[in-house]
Amino acid sequence: MEHVYEILEVAGSSKKSIEDAVKNAVAAAGKKSKNLRWFEVVETRGYIEEGKISYWQVAVKIGATIEA
Amino acid sequence: MEHVYEILEVAGSSKKSIEDAVKNAVAAAGKKSKNLRWFEVVETRGYIEEGKISYWQVAVKIGATIEA
Amino acid sequence: MEHVYEILEVAGSSKKSIEDAVKNAVAAAGKKSKNLRWFEVVETRGYIEEGKISYWQVAVKIGATIEA
Amino acid sequence: MEHVYEILEVAGSSKKSIEDAVKNAVAAAGKKSKNLRWFEVVETRGYIEEGKISYWQVAVKIGATIEA
Amino acid sequence: MEHVYEILEVAGSSKKSIEDAVKNAVAAAGKKSKNLRWFEVVETRGYIEEGKISYWQVAVKIGATIEA
Amino acid sequence: MEHVYEILEVAGSSKKSIEDAVKNAVAAAGKKSKNLRWFEVVETRGYIEEGKISYWQVAVKIGATIEA
Amino acid sequence: MEHVYEILEVAGSSKKSIEDAVKNAVAAAGKKSKNLRWFEVVETRGYIEEGKISYWQVAVKIGATIEA
Amino acid sequence: MEHVYEILEVAGSSKKSIEDAVKNAVAAAGKKSKNLRWFEVVETRGYIEEGKISYWQVAVKIGATIEA
Amino acid sequence: MEHVYEILEVAGSSKKSIEDAVKNAVAAAGKKSKNLRWFEVVETRGYIEEGKISYWQVAVKIGATIEA
Amino acid sequence: MEHVYEILEVAGSSKKSIEDAVKNAVAAAGKKSKNLRWFEVVETRGYIEEGKISYWQVAVKIGATIEA
Amino acid sequence: MEHVYEILEVAGSSKKSIEDAVKNAVAAAGKKSKNLRWFEVVETRGYIEEGKISYWQVAVKIGATIEA
Amino acid sequence: MEHVYEILEVAGSSKKSIEDAVKNAVAAAGKKSKNLRWFEVVETRGYIEEGKISYWQVAVKIGATIEA
Repeated sequence: MEHVYEILEVAGSSKKSIEDAVKNAVAAAGKKSKNLRWFEVVETRGYIEEGKISYWQVAVKIGATIEA
Repeated sequence: MEHVYEILEVAGSSKKSIEDAVKNAVAAAGKKSKNLRWFEVVETRGYIEEGKISYWQVAVKIGATIEA
Repeated sequence: MEHVYEILEVAGSSKKSIEDAVKNAVAAAGKKSKNLRWFEVVETRGYIEEGKISYWQVAVKIGATIEA
Repeated sequence: MEHVYEILEVAGSSKKSIEDAVKNAVAAAGKKSKNLRWFEVVETRGYIEEGKISYWQVAVKIGATIEA
Repeated sequence: MEHVYEILEVAGSSKKSIEDAVKNAVAAAGKKSKNLRWFEVVETRGYIEEGKISYWQVAVKIGATIEA
Repeated sequence: MEHVYEILEVAGSSKKSIEDAVKNAVAAAGKKSKNLRWFEVVETRGYIEEGKISYWQVAVKIGATIEA
Repeated sequence: MEHVYEILEVAGSSKKSIEDAVKNAVAAAGKKSKNLRWFEVVETRGYIEEGKISYWQVAVKIGATIEA
Repeated sequence: MEHVYEILEVAGSSKKSIEDAVKNAVAAAGKKSKNLRWFEVVETRGYIEEGKISYWQVAVKIGATIEA
Repeated sequence: MEHVYEILEVAGSSKKSIEDAVKNAVAAAGKKSKNLRWFEVVETRGYIEEGKISYWQVAVKIGATIEA
Repeated sequence: MEHVYEILEVAGSSKKSIEDAVKNAVAAAGKKSKNLRWFEVVETRGYIEEGKISYWQVAVKIGATIEA
Repeated sequence: MEHVYEILEVAGSSKKSIEDAVKNAVAAAGKKSKNLRWFEVVETRGYIEEGKISYWQVAVKIGATIEA
Repeated sequence: MEHVYEILEVAGSSKKSIEDAVKNAVAAAGKKSKNLRWFEVVETRGYIEEGKISYWQVAVKIGATIEA
């Protein structure tokens, strides 16, 4: 069958890890669409406070099926 | 005159051809906006079943005029 | 605190300058979201009429906070 | 033998297909040089009118032999 | 389930079209592996003879499942 | 209608601003062709003398219609 | 001494983490060659089911010494 | 004569313009080295407050002669 | 207020994880500057011994405030 | 003073070395313009016959001053 | 005629020069296939010992004809 | 053991060859650090006088161990 996906871009962050930042981005996108199917991490950044990493931040492209 | 465009990203697919996959992506975007103006193909992929191409999939950026 | 941003892509134009084209893109995005935080210019183009630049056009990625 | 190529960049368009847009670009370049040898498609775009693709536009780099 | 794919890169050509060149690349890869799953077109080029396109050439990355 | 564009690349400079450097590049290209239509800024550089920016330099791709 | 490496590209996946997906890719490549030396992660993607990340998928380039 | 340049990367910002943000980056680099010669703008970003651009931020690579 | 950042590039490694390799890079940069603010991961690599990942290595760009 | 450069792209080849292929590209461009100022190597390729490199081929961008 | 190429990636090194490192990569690939046709240098690196370059290392993509 | 590298960027030039320009860049970096380990050539350019290459210029990223 022929699918069409809308591709959203979302930036998520986390104090714990890169994976957790991606999960937060996906969770936020999930409030906009019930049909998320895949993601691609396009940027991995973060912030530093007093010499330590205070949080991780990722930019993620997320594909969501559009109902025909 | 000075225009502003919203740039959407959509992935479309087709059993027939790259052009047809782009048309499907544009058609889906057309349900969200009546003001589509241009597109750019940013990725050309596809899937293979039993050694044959089962469908073509393209990622397309699409520009739509925003009314001022 | 952990933030999530939606990343929009908008193209704006101006007869005056690159900065003014970016302002127009940001102003248009501001009608969709009250929570714009940052932008990145990803493309700088323009149009020419009778040998002179008739307007500047920029593509801008814009990050907007999503309320958790 | 050692060849030298001039590399031209041309954008062509077509109502029909990507391949036809490339052919139009090559045909136009052929009026400037009789010695075209190869091409590379570097951008695939297009325009949309009333929700349908009105034409395809490609940017093509074209190599032409320079006689030593 | 957790999959692993080997990613092959193959260049195929065709006198007819970009899609046909991709099919030829996939067919050749199919002689090496029975488990082809997806492809991505990474380059679209071609050759010109007497001012006309003599054939299309594409470079394609192809993913093939490796049995665990 | 189906257009074909020749794409020129020109580097222009200016003591004043990025926009002025682009204008100088477009003006120079205008001596070669009366049919300039659009441009894209592909590089923004400059030179420094005694700790101050002495001039801005941009590389610009410029599209010019080729008469059929 | 002068080394030569064969560079393989493998995609691995994991339900747990990016690191685990890379390990699975390396383990699969290890069945083909005993001489793996280094890797580079070139793409980080994943799949989503019912709003949650179902698995992580990475594309990895892997260098393996070729015996002279 | 044969020169060697150290290439620094600096991010500067300004409330006024892209050019002014570059000037601020160059001025800061000038406190580290008296021998700045050229720069390249590698990123143009900015921040938004209450729907308006609060400042422009550029990342600039700067070349400085090293005395032999 | 208008900030200026120096952008350092550091490669860190770790036997444990990508995040730990980034932490080691940030810790090393922290010995040079007390004013680290943000980072961006620009490359993720690693080394393999006897078929297993012996350590992860990341290249990280790190921004540090320069006092005006 | 404010300069404008035309940027040509030329591919040159040589049986001997990369540097010699660049020299051949520059020599050919020199027949078109007396005002060549700088070049940038953008691609390094070559051809193989009977297992040996038969010639090196480079694509070079060349900047030539345009008289105002 | 319509050709299909397998594209291999190989890294070669040499104490002498970039060209010699490419030759070593091509020679190693030649043990796997008798049908090498072209190459492209995709990365040029090297190692340093006691302040001097101890060897050059290149990553090369190599195209080899597959018999139909 | 876990290493940390500082990554410097240096541009070197030479009248003779690309390799010699890299050597000059490495030699200059060697005056700043005794712990240089590897390099990557990121740009190959040059200057032309009276139709001939007057010198080669390379931009090189250089990794130097930081003592823990």
